[in-house]
Amino acid sequence: MTKQNTVRITPLGGIGEVGKNMTVIEYADEMIVIDCGLCFPREDMLGVDYVIPDISYLRKNKEKIKAVLITHGHEDHIGATPYLLTDIGAPVYGTDLSLALIETKLAERKIDGLNLNIIRPGDVLNLGTFRVETVKVTHSIDAAVGYAIHTPAGTIVHTGDFKVDYTPVDGKIMDLGKFAELGKKGVLALLSDSTNAETPGFTMSESKVGETFENYFKKAEGRIIVATFASNIHRLQQVFEASKRFGRKVCLSGRSMLKIAKVATELGYLAFNEDILVEPEDLEKMKKNKIVILTTGSQGETMSGLVRMAAGEHKKLAMIPGDLVIISATPIPGNERYVSDVINMLYRKGADVINEGVADVHVSGHACEEELKMMLSIVKPKYFIPVHGEYRHLYRHAALAESVGIKKSNIFIPEIGKVIEIGKKFSRFSETVPSGTVIIDGLGVGDVGNVVLRDRRLLSQDGLFIVVVTISSETGELISGPDIVSRGFVYMRESTDLLDGARNIVIEVVQECEKNKVSEWTTIKNRIKKALRSYLYDNTKRNPMILPIIIDI
Amino acid sequence: MTKQNTVRITPLGGIGEVGKNMTVIEYADEMIVIDCGLCFPREDMLGVDYVIPDISYLRKNKEKIKAVLITHGHEDHIGATPYLLTDIGAPVYGTDLSLALIETKLAERKIDGLNLNIIRPGDVLNLGTFRVETVKVTHSIDAAVGYAIHTPAGTIVHTGDFKVDYTPVDGKIMDLGKFAELGKKGVLALLSDSTNAETPGFTMSESKVGETFENYFKKAEGRIIVATFASNIHRLQQVFEASKRFGRKVCLSGRSMLKIAKVATELGYLAFNEDILVEPEDLEKMKKNKIVILTTGSQGETMSGLVRMAAGEHKKLAMIPGDLVIISATPIPGNERYVSDVINMLYRKGADVINEGVADVHVSGHACEEELKMMLSIVKPKYFIPVHGEYRHLYRHAALAESVGIKKSNIFIPEIGKVIEIGKKFSRFSETVPSGTVIIDGLGVGDVGNVVLRDRRLLSQDGLFIVVVTISSETGELISGPDIVSRGFVYMRESTDLLDGARNIVIEVVQECEKNKVSEWTTIKNRIKKALRSYLYDNTKRNPMILPIIIDI
Repeated sequence: MTKQNTVRITPLGGIGEVGKNMTVIEYADEMIVIDCGLCFPREDMLGVDYVIPDISYLRKNKEKIKAVLITHGHEDHIGATPYLLTDIGAPVYGTDLSLALIETKLAERKIDGLNLNIIRPGDVLNLGTFRVETVKVTHSIDAAVGYAIHTPAGTIVHTGDFKVDYTPVDGKIMDLGKFAELGKKGVLALLSDSTNAETPGFTMSESKVGETFENYFKKAEGRIIVATFASNIHRLQQVFEASKRFGRKVCLSGRSMLKIAKVATELGYLAFNEDILVEPEDLEKMKKNKIVILTTGSQGETMSGLVRMAAGEHKKLAMIPGDLVIISATPIPGNERYVSDVINMLYRKGADVINEGVADVHVSGHACEEELKMMLSIVKPKYFIPVHGEYRHLYRHAALAESVGIKKSNIFIPEIGKVIEIGKKFSRFSETVPSGTVIIDGLGVGDVGNVVLRDRRLLSQDGLFIVVVTISSETGELISGPDIVSRGFVYMRESTDLLDGARNIVIEVVQECEKNKVSEWTTIKNRIKKALRSYLYDNTKRNPMILPIIIDI
Repeated sequence: MTKQNTVRITPLGGIGEVGKNMTVIEYADEMIVIDCGLCFPREDMLGVDYVIPDISYLRKNKEKIKAVLITHGHEDHIGATPYLLTDIGAPVYGTDLSLALIETKLAERKIDGLNLNIIRPGDVLNLGTFRVETVKVTHSIDAAVGYAIHTPAGTIVHTGDFKVDYTPVDGKIMDLGKFAELGKKGVLALLSDSTNAETPGFTMSESKVGETFENYFKKAEGRIIVATFASNIHRLQQVFEASKRFGRKVCLSGRSMLKIAKVATELGYLAFNEDILVEPEDLEKMKKNKIVILTTGSQGETMSGLVRMAAGEHKKLAMIPGDLVIISATPIPGNERYVSDVINMLYRKGADVINEGVADVHVSGHACEEELKMMLSIVKPKYFIPVHGEYRHLYRHAALAESVGIKKSNIFIPEIGKVIEIGKKFSRFSETVPSGTVIIDGLGVGDVGNVVLRDRRLLSQDGLFIVVVTISSETGELISGPDIVSRGFVYMRESTDLLDGARNIVIEVVQECEKNKVSEWTTIKNRIKKALRSYLYDNTKRNPMILPIIIDI
């Protein structure tokens, strides 16, 4: 399928969405996969746990895959590994932290025997025809990298998620020199993070948050509770630094906080003196101004530490009037309501709340307009493919690329599954490969589809209305019923008239069918449905799901 | 109940929420009600249309109510009038525009015979013991007022929703002088709009948006589509002005846009030359740079003009590559996702999109911190009650009041239904009156409650699983079934093993019951439920609603 000297780039996720990032780079009969992420379901995907990419294309081409390269350890880049890596089988490369987080996931699902290979930023990998360079970037999780994939057709640069932070907490800035060097040698195509393409200017440095922490730690007279993403290890480090500086002890709360702090400490990404830690049980006897609680829940997640504390449902920790709560995060789109709920609860418990609207307690992990233009300017790619973002972000990123001189005809706004073919002298959208979304719900991977989701949506709106009629298989006569069971439609006890009316309508339909010798069940059911639908709608202006069940005896 | 010289203030809505504003002011045996709003349901109130206040308290005290005073014509202040005004019966006072919008609502529901009385800002009403002054405020809808209610116990000032706009589009600024005069004479209590209490500084003037429009209208080479709230008449006026200035015609789209433009024009709030209007049918033959489409849909509402255009589902209007779409609004919390969806669709149709992140195409209608402090400073109330907002806003507003010198003990953070009693020498929270929320779903007002909503939530998560067994009423023997019907749980055709297993479990339970002479239906049903629940959960990690139905013959 591939022409000589042509590289094929196919996103299997992360396009038109924030999440489930996965991209395939293909040359001749060899493939490299970048990232293996999951996505949290949209609100209208009722009851769904996660969404992962459809990797039929990779399954079909298993033997071609030389490697899965991981850019960093966020869920939208590694979350699908427990579901997909065993299928793909290829060796996985990532930094120590990324792989440690993958291993935690695999362990939870009792998956082992995978071929995980630790790389360090700067490492060069020879993977079949591909020569891959690992380039350090800064992001809201440590040990993040981008990749330069050298193919016979040219070099493809994938930034991964990044921001340009000149004063990162660990002092290790991203390898802009390497990106510039790649640009100088010539880059065929750049794939770059579009998440913040709508935001003007530069993203603030992570260090800025540390300054804000210091200001509040200096003034606070009671306990301080900081809620943040557990994976933002530099953020955790800054909480430890401020606590130490102002003589406070730190109590860690939340399952993922404990888990990630452990992993990050073992790998040396998080450093603190063990003495600074206290257990929840010890807080009561301590002075309030000596306490910091570092917890999950910055997105208002129901089961998180902060929310359980705010709701008074935490087993070991309770809010105390005078607590200062710092929510060190921005609500992810869709979570605004939940975050607002927890803020309201906190105020009612007598806490004061500092969030992003009030002070610089959070900075983004993604590059804004000027940083994106910088990346485009130093990498100077011939072709540009904005990735990681909704379409609004991809189009804005494309406009930025045009503004720094990339030819409009050389910019591809990608689609999931649509192959972009780039050769030395041409480029085009080629065929669309099998792709899409796979839904994870409980133990089921892919067994919930559109029909099930449509039914859940219908049920969620006006509930259901079940009618059971027992009919004589000989005469078609009504033997028993109609029995009506309804849920989520009306309050049954106060709707006896409505239900009596419905029963009479069903009796009429069945008798009519008997009289006219209609014995086909499907027909009888459809007639019951039709009659009931208009009766119920006329009386309530609601459309419950109507389920006629016929039992023949 | 009321002590001599004591005024009672009781919010029946609008506290801890943005919506369904309603407040009762009571002195001796007389009452005044301010506003009668609705609230849009939270996402977890599945299938619900609207939420209105529970007015049992007003129903019980009908004869005491001297008036319902309307501050302005937004849904959260007038939306419940069709449901509640006939119950209350009292005369309603509001400005011409507010009442015209109420009349439109009443007409839609064929309600007439109400006692509606037009007032103008500055009017003084004598309503029983109460003397009420009407004070002009500026807001994102025209003809908005606040009220000063003079009682023998002192003066209560209610700002209504407001912002301080020194350059409103019609040149009529709010009556700050009257608020200052009231303050000078002495105000017992101030109730003030808290919506923007978290936002520092001042709200920008509506005129600012006009400048932004001019900039884009000047440059645009294709059609311009402006989406905004139909009720923001000054915003509409500015679109007409800019269109006129740059020689463009205006096509109005969206049911509420047409409705409100008509009402506002009749009352003289919106002024334009009829010639400027064009019908959708005429657009095709016009030059693109002569066209403005003014439409609803700024919140991404499914059935709105903009969304139908973006989705290619509008009967008369379609997007054209090169269209410039100005979304002149901020997403209301909870609508972010829908607005984002429509922006993504617009980009994919080849349009360019300007929204609040990109340019000053929207300003809020609510006062920010500095304006709120100004209001507090000129009214100088003895007691302060922050209203209209979630708790986070009320607490912030309380802090602002403290910062300008109101005593903490004189600030009441209200609760819905909790009576605040204020006398000359004392103040306290008194009893709680019947209050809460009434759900409107289709034709039903209040017939959907917590049980129905809980069932809808359950059904929405993992669907349902119905088992019908026909049992001999004599022997308890299984005559027919179990028949299984399931929706929203698993894809039935691919789950035959699971269903066979479930059937066997039900048979076992029924046989066990028969053997042990258990004939109580509730017991049999519960045993079936219990056995199925653990079977289904073990096999799927899902918990569908299980509905056993027993038919006896």
